[in-house]
Amino acid sequence: MNGNEFGRLFRFTTFGESHGEAMGCTVSGCPAGVEISEDVVQKELDRRKPGQSMITTSRGEPDEVSIKSGTLEGYTTGTPIGMVIQNKDARSGKYEPFITAPRPSHGDYTYSAKFGTRNWGGGGRSSARETVNWVAAGAVAKQVLDQSEYDVQVKAHVNQIGDITAEDVSWEDMLEHTEDNEVRCADPEKAEEMRDAIDRYQEEGDSIGGSIYFECRGVPPGLGAPRFDSFAARMGKAMFSIPATTAVEYGQGREARDMRGVDRNEDWEFDDGTRDDVVSEEGDPVPVGNDHGGLQGGITTGEPIYGEATWHAPVSIPKKQETVDWETGEKKEAQVVGRHDPSLPPRAVPVVEAMLRVTILDFMLLGGRINPDRLDGRPGEYDTAYHPESPQNDPDDADTMTESVDED
Amino acid sequence: MNGNEFGRLFRFTTFGESHGEAMGCTVSGCPAGVEISEDVVQKELDRRKPGQSMITTSRGEPDEVSIKSGTLEGYTTGTPIGMVIQNKDARSGKYEPFITAPRPSHGDYTYSAKFGTRNWGGGGRSSARETVNWVAAGAVAKQVLDQSEYDVQVKAHVNQIGDITAEDVSWEDMLEHTEDNEVRCADPEKAEEMRDAIDRYQEEGDSIGGSIYFECRGVPPGLGAPRFDSFAARMGKAMFSIPATTAVEYGQGREARDMRGVDRNEDWEFDDGTRDDVVSEEGDPVPVGNDHGGLQGGITTGEPIYGEATWHAPVSIPKKQETVDWETGEKKEAQVVGRHDPSLPPRAVPVVEAMLRVTILDFMLLGGRINPDRLDGRPGEYDTAYHPESPQNDPDDADTMTESVDED
Amino acid sequence: MNGNEFGRLFRFTTFGESHGEAMGCTVSGCPAGVEISEDVVQKELDRRKPGQSMITTSRGEPDEVSIKSGTLEGYTTGTPIGMVIQNKDARSGKYEPFITAPRPSHGDYTYSAKFGTRNWGGGGRSSARETVNWVAAGAVAKQVLDQSEYDVQVKAHVNQIGDITAEDVSWEDMLEHTEDNEVRCADPEKAEEMRDAIDRYQEEGDSIGGSIYFECRGVPPGLGAPRFDSFAARMGKAMFSIPATTAVEYGQGREARDMRGVDRNEDWEFDDGTRDDVVSEEGDPVPVGNDHGGLQGGITTGEPIYGEATWHAPVSIPKKQETVDWETGEKKEAQVVGRHDPSLPPRAVPVVEAMLRVTILDFMLLGGRINPDRLDGRPGEYDTAYHPESPQNDPDDADTMTESVDED
Amino acid sequence: MNGNEFGRLFRFTTFGESHGEAMGCTVSGCPAGVEISEDVVQKELDRRKPGQSMITTSRGEPDEVSIKSGTLEGYTTGTPIGMVIQNKDARSGKYEPFITAPRPSHGDYTYSAKFGTRNWGGGGRSSARETVNWVAAGAVAKQVLDQSEYDVQVKAHVNQIGDITAEDVSWEDMLEHTEDNEVRCADPEKAEEMRDAIDRYQEEGDSIGGSIYFECRGVPPGLGAPRFDSFAARMGKAMFSIPATTAVEYGQGREARDMRGVDRNEDWEFDDGTRDDVVSEEGDPVPVGNDHGGLQGGITTGEPIYGEATWHAPVSIPKKQETVDWETGEKKEAQVVGRHDPSLPPRAVPVVEAMLRVTILDFMLLGGRINPDRLDGRPGEYDTAYHPESPQNDPDDADTMTESVDED
Repeated sequence: MNGNEFGRLFRFTTFGESHGEAMGCTVSGCPAGVEISEDVVQKELDRRKPGQSMITTSRGEPDEVSIKSGTLEGYTTGTPIGMVIQNKDARSGKYEPFITAPRPSHGDYTYSAKFGTRNWGGGGRSSARETVNWVAAGAVAKQVLDQSEYDVQVKAHVNQIGDITAEDVSWEDMLEHTEDNEVRCADPEKAEEMRDAIDRYQEEGDSIGGSIYFECRGVPPGLGAPRFDSFAARMGKAMFSIPATTAVEYGQGREARDMRGVDRNEDWEFDDGTRDDVVSEEGDPVPVGNDHGGLQGGITTGEPIYGEATWHAPVSIPKKQETVDWETGEKKEAQVVGRHDPSLPPRAVPVVEAMLRVTILDFMLLGGRINPDRLDGRPGEYDTAYHPESPQNDPDDADTMTESVDED
Repeated sequence: MNGNEFGRLFRFTTFGESHGEAMGCTVSGCPAGVEISEDVVQKELDRRKPGQSMITTSRGEPDEVSIKSGTLEGYTTGTPIGMVIQNKDARSGKYEPFITAPRPSHGDYTYSAKFGTRNWGGGGRSSARETVNWVAAGAVAKQVLDQSEYDVQVKAHVNQIGDITAEDVSWEDMLEHTEDNEVRCADPEKAEEMRDAIDRYQEEGDSIGGSIYFECRGVPPGLGAPRFDSFAARMGKAMFSIPATTAVEYGQGREARDMRGVDRNEDWEFDDGTRDDVVSEEGDPVPVGNDHGGLQGGITTGEPIYGEATWHAPVSIPKKQETVDWETGEKKEAQVVGRHDPSLPPRAVPVVEAMLRVTILDFMLLGGRINPDRLDGRPGEYDTAYHPESPQNDPDDADTMTESVDED
Repeated sequence: MNGNEFGRLFRFTTFGESHGEAMGCTVSGCPAGVEISEDVVQKELDRRKPGQSMITTSRGEPDEVSIKSGTLEGYTTGTPIGMVIQNKDARSGKYEPFITAPRPSHGDYTYSAKFGTRNWGGGGRSSARETVNWVAAGAVAKQVLDQSEYDVQVKAHVNQIGDITAEDVSWEDMLEHTEDNEVRCADPEKAEEMRDAIDRYQEEGDSIGGSIYFECRGVPPGLGAPRFDSFAARMGKAMFSIPATTAVEYGQGREARDMRGVDRNEDWEFDDGTRDDVVSEEGDPVPVGNDHGGLQGGITTGEPIYGEATWHAPVSIPKKQETVDWETGEKKEAQVVGRHDPSLPPRAVPVVEAMLRVTILDFMLLGGRINPDRLDGRPGEYDTAYHPESPQNDPDDADTMTESVDED
Repeated sequence: MNGNEFGRLFRFTTFGESHGEAMGCTVSGCPAGVEISEDVVQKELDRRKPGQSMITTSRGEPDEVSIKSGTLEGYTTGTPIGMVIQNKDARSGKYEPFITAPRPSHGDYTYSAKFGTRNWGGGGRSSARETVNWVAAGAVAKQVLDQSEYDVQVKAHVNQIGDITAEDVSWEDMLEHTEDNEVRCADPEKAEEMRDAIDRYQEEGDSIGGSIYFECRGVPPGLGAPRFDSFAARMGKAMFSIPATTAVEYGQGREARDMRGVDRNEDWEFDDGTRDDVVSEEGDPVPVGNDHGGLQGGITTGEPIYGEATWHAPVSIPKKQETVDWETGEKKEAQVVGRHDPSLPPRAVPVVEAMLRVTILDFMLLGGRINPDRLDGRPGEYDTAYHPESPQNDPDDADTMTESVDED
């Protein structure tokens, strides 16, 4: 409603602006009994972090996450997981010239039109900085999925920058090569070209668009609700929430316009035991191909869910542009010098993965695949905790207990 | 959560299957004091209706809407508007061969995987028949918008079928020519070609994909919430809810991959009184162009919001295909003869418009542009009703009133 | 948000006014594979129906329910269940004198203040007539619960009318004697007195308040989310949604004000196999008593959940009262003659039970006790339907299938 | 759904456990342009703070709030307000004996039944400590209301402890005397008696129940949606969310059971200019009395909304009680020595006020009384910010601007 939360049963709520004091994320609805490591969260944040390479903004943010609640001795308790990430390198003073003069294609004008004001320190709430929270939430979802009985894997890579397009890469290539280069493209040769192109645009004081290919494997069939909560609808919402996304596609995407039914339709066969790309058992019906991108009737088939999303060129560029000042009524030249990404997809890869993981986990909880209350076992039976090293397993069994509590 | 409702403040909830007894739609959150005509609703339903032309399914559904509640003497009262549309030409018996053998690329397998059963009469809940409810809700939204102080206009047309692409058509062309032909393409020449192509595919027992271009004018700046409830995110969810959509784009869409920042970015100028494509007053800052598709930072700029959506070819085709029967463990030939659309976009045009209207109205209520309680005037002041011919304006002012009521 | 839906995973949405054309209820999120009988729904509606006895309004509504969707051969398919109940005995003409003169203590003024208009035919949307929809939804929930592996039982009876209070009655008494008398009080002697009192008030052109005691058995431990979605919070919302409720209590309720901790606190013991009032197994920890009303920390303990709700006297009474006409600026006498209930609790009993059942089922779905997708079996495995007599089990296994479909 | 958020348009989401590292609250949907003072928030937190007097727990928490986002130079920007409160005096080690032995009437067993584990440090998430977040959110709501054009005032006081009941106190007494004494009872004599009684129970190692009377003035007519989002339903949910509440009443509450219609019903008169207890203008219809507690048909009449809520005795008491250990299968004695409140109402007063303020503000946003986007002015018109001392009003109007930005 007010745009700061995502998910239904597994839901995260965020706060923070580009140049505020801190970013924060509250994950609600995480099942109990999941081992959550700050290191795993940190590792994902590091992939999104500014300043990680020459082709990202040089803003110096360590993006260190601190988990404030929701875990006990490293395991979730079912209560909300509060995470805070301090902003360390905010310099909002530099934005003052633009307070009443909107920067070209930023959210300056629209935020002012809506709220009558805005946080003019960088993009404020509209800055991509806020996605640090999403990656944190996605890293929690990742750990739940990894510890579930399902082998859900989510991977994305940059498949186009400007006019340079990656060759078709295999799932294995994506897993192995994506993180090999700064562009996060699983095709090493094209990655090189993309890298050069980005450098070139950056040198010219310009920026460039691009796209990401994503794929989700191991998602069981039957996920997604009919109609407005179809998997596609939720995935579309997730992707379009990411700043600067202008197109979202799945399966044959835009090319489906020019495909005939007989070509796109997929026959059914029985899994003969060789279909390890599908979540199925031998003898199950499986589609012969996957033009449908893993979704039929908006619900998962068990085949890989794949698609693409497009990002327009970053709007913060050093080239001189024109704007107007609504306070003075005068024209101005606008030049946004400083620290920006020349192209968004390389750092958007972990964001895409995070949003997909949250979407998948949410559907798995809603569809009863993972119990919403606790990862392991059946709810409604009291239990000691899941973690073996817990003091629960070495209880003080003195006959009389005295407790000195600190109840608020 | 369970996929049968759309919208937040203006929300509709639906029921019905392809071959069930009736379709139904409850519109909740419609402001009071809006004149709602069943005729206007019916007119929109007729645009979506099966059997309206030779290139649509020949199923004979009159799709007559009946408003059951929520209005008094033709004006809304603020209470939910219940609408029911009887199914008249259901013939579900014909589907029996497919009960345990999924039709290629339908939702048969996925619904069974999720629910352990499904309504095998046609697509059941996954059928496009259900969009009749959406168009009904959109027709209510249209009437609210039309009676508001805003001049919001929403128009869509078919811009591609197979490999035939419409020329760029103007807004005026869309308004004037879209309904001139059965394809609903505003480029008359290309419409002819598309029509021929569809016929050809139909004759071959095949089907073909296509796409729709949509545009919304008169939407004021400042609509949409940051991040997860951005206008783009909600629009993406709306579009991907429509059956068989595989791609959604806005602004430069997929082409933004290969645009540089300096080209895509738009300078700001002052409206000199000639910018009648923008919701602005003379002297307001307005973007010089509209590569951004009317959205910056996920919030409306006042410029036209435009985009495209792609539909894959209909999956019900008479050509022989292969499937397997999970009950008998045998292969079968599948052939779906009968009454189907050979291409979806022509009938999807009113569905797209409906979903956009609901999305826009919902944001206008959420952003305080239209009062959620009542269209006219200020809430919190009791009032006689808005409708002048009402008996309210000719009250019985006898000193003593006796009332004989029928309270339940 | 706009007040016409209740529940999260199991959610119903309603439409209809006291003197509109029809009442309607869409149940969304009902698991698939549940046998739903219109007769069971009808039986519950009959308990709430007007005109069922001398102490209820004499309005003649048969309240016949028609299920329009969501079932196939009597079993749910997981898709929304649309139900419609025609209004047969509406006579709204009689209300005209009150259009601009609010009836004492009705919602006339407040609805007009909010919406600037209202449906002045009876109470419109504020009428208790609307609860017919709730009972229909509750009857669906009842059938889900009855077919689940849990033995959830919900029962309510009238425990006070005016100054007449029922003696403490046992659970068995409630089950056996509640429906024996028109007052729905499980204490037969007091029921007689209550009945006489109601008659007396009715003869005097007056009305009287009262209350209901409710109890839920068989609800497993561990239901309810912490804090804002605690079982108590959801139950409180459910009860206060029922028209004319002014107090809701559970456990010791209002009397807990004057209880000391040592008296209210309950020790824990092991279930020795005799605690058949609790959902537990021998050897489980169980509370020694149940002053806590089955809820600790807002979550169920497995003991009976019990409480009370209070209804004020019906506001439609034939006695002469005073009002003012905001159109003419004059005082008027108001007299509401006609067909009303002289006391609400007798007909509110099935409404209370319905709301409790929906609340419990919703929590059971949210907490993974009942699978949200399908009652039986594990989701994600395609299956034939649950109903043995289905044609699914006698598939046509001809090698070639031709289907003649009616896709919309 | 997962219990950690409250409100619809004005919504807060919380995290934190009794003995975790920090408590946190994210307020989403606060209109822009509101001056938010950390001091005002702190002042409310101090009223709820542990250790504030001899009759509260002696846990030493300064409860210092830090606002991390959502404001600029002290004014809200429309983006989420993140607040964090560090826990300083947590001592969870003392709880270990109870890990597998539930304390009598705490949430120990129920949390374990639900989640299979729990944070055994104090009450964990079920502790009243969590209400510090609610008071913070309520203090934000208070500032919005105070700066709106409405004069909404919310006040609560303790009206019963054990068998000691306050005399009827006037609204003015409540405003003036509630904070005079540690019990927060506006009747000074009874406050003294209550104080003595609480001391006595505390000395005995026991605790005692009590209740709070609350009243809201200045709430305009027409707030609240029909049926499931009636003002009463939302208020009921708010009150029952507060830990240890067992009864909620409004208007005549439980006493309405024994009131006849003619006594409870209220005639309508015209406001003659003397009705300063009602939100109305001279000549408006106003009810003659207020037995209805400010709500008719679930919607506000403009008269004071009032009611009561009951708290059971705190469950943490030093007296010896019995429990069982589910790990060892043995009985144990349970004694909860330490720092607890002997009675809850004195510290619950600010919590009740906070929840009512959030509820009222939420309805005012939903009903269009306060614009959801910005407190002042009309949305959709870009503007400089509201705060006069802002640098926005002294823009750098050099013809060329260079900006050095820190975009993430």
